[in-house]
Amino acid sequence: MKIFNYREVEAEKVTEEGAKGTTVRWLIDEKIGAKNFFMRLFEMEPGGYSPLHTHPWEHEVFILEGEGTVVSKEGEHKVGPGDVIYIPPNEKHQLKNTGKTTFKFLCLIPSTK
Amino acid sequence: MKIFNYREVEAEKVTEEGAKGTTVRWLIDEKIGAKNFFMRLFEMEPGGYSPLHTHPWEHEVFILEGEGTVVSKEGEHKVGPGDVIYIPPNEKHQLKNTGKTTFKFLCLIPSTK
Repeated sequence: MKIFNYREVEAEKVTEEGAKGTTVRWLIDEKIGAKNFFMRLFEMEPGGYSPLHTHPWEHEVFILEGEGTVVSKEGEHKVGPGDVIYIPPNEKHQLKNTGKTTFKFLCLIPSTK
Repeated sequence: MKIFNYREVEAEKVTEEGAKGTTVRWLIDEKIGAKNFFMRLFEMEPGGYSPLHTHPWEHEVFILEGEGTVVSKEGEHKVGPGDVIYIPPNEKHQLKNTGKTTFKFLCLIPSTK
């Protein structure tokens, strides 16, 4: 069993094209033995965003802190703490910090991505 | 894409033997299209606990609110908001609310469990 605080895991800058002001901490991945799915924690500074993109794996998201917007094919949708987002494979998506504080969320992906 | 607040999902009483004062909300599962892994949110009232048990699938846990203890083969370990727990398959475990408020955490499992 592994027990730690998320702050103990390094926050790496997201360098993917189309991302701004965003870091990711890989909390649970193959390095600690996970085989099926991985847990990441993202932090976006005010004005930050993830790329507007599509990929063949799903996201399971839980919003922890702050205020943001999810962009989907249906338009934009405000989200905040306690909100859950399921993004199916191959669906275009983007998350943006539209608030004045850090926008923080968990985003899990399958290990087969 | 599905977007909702966790409070919109019914909290079901955990009736498994050895559990006390605990509810579970199945936030993301096969009903909304997830195929690889499922997100659940547990709430334990003060004095509540999950069964001390073992099973052949892993848990990926993120503590949201409250104070609790994780029981493992190494003993007991206090946890609180922002703590992450990876419980490998076939490792004995239990979570207990040792605080005075609701102990709330996400616990994800593979769909193959």
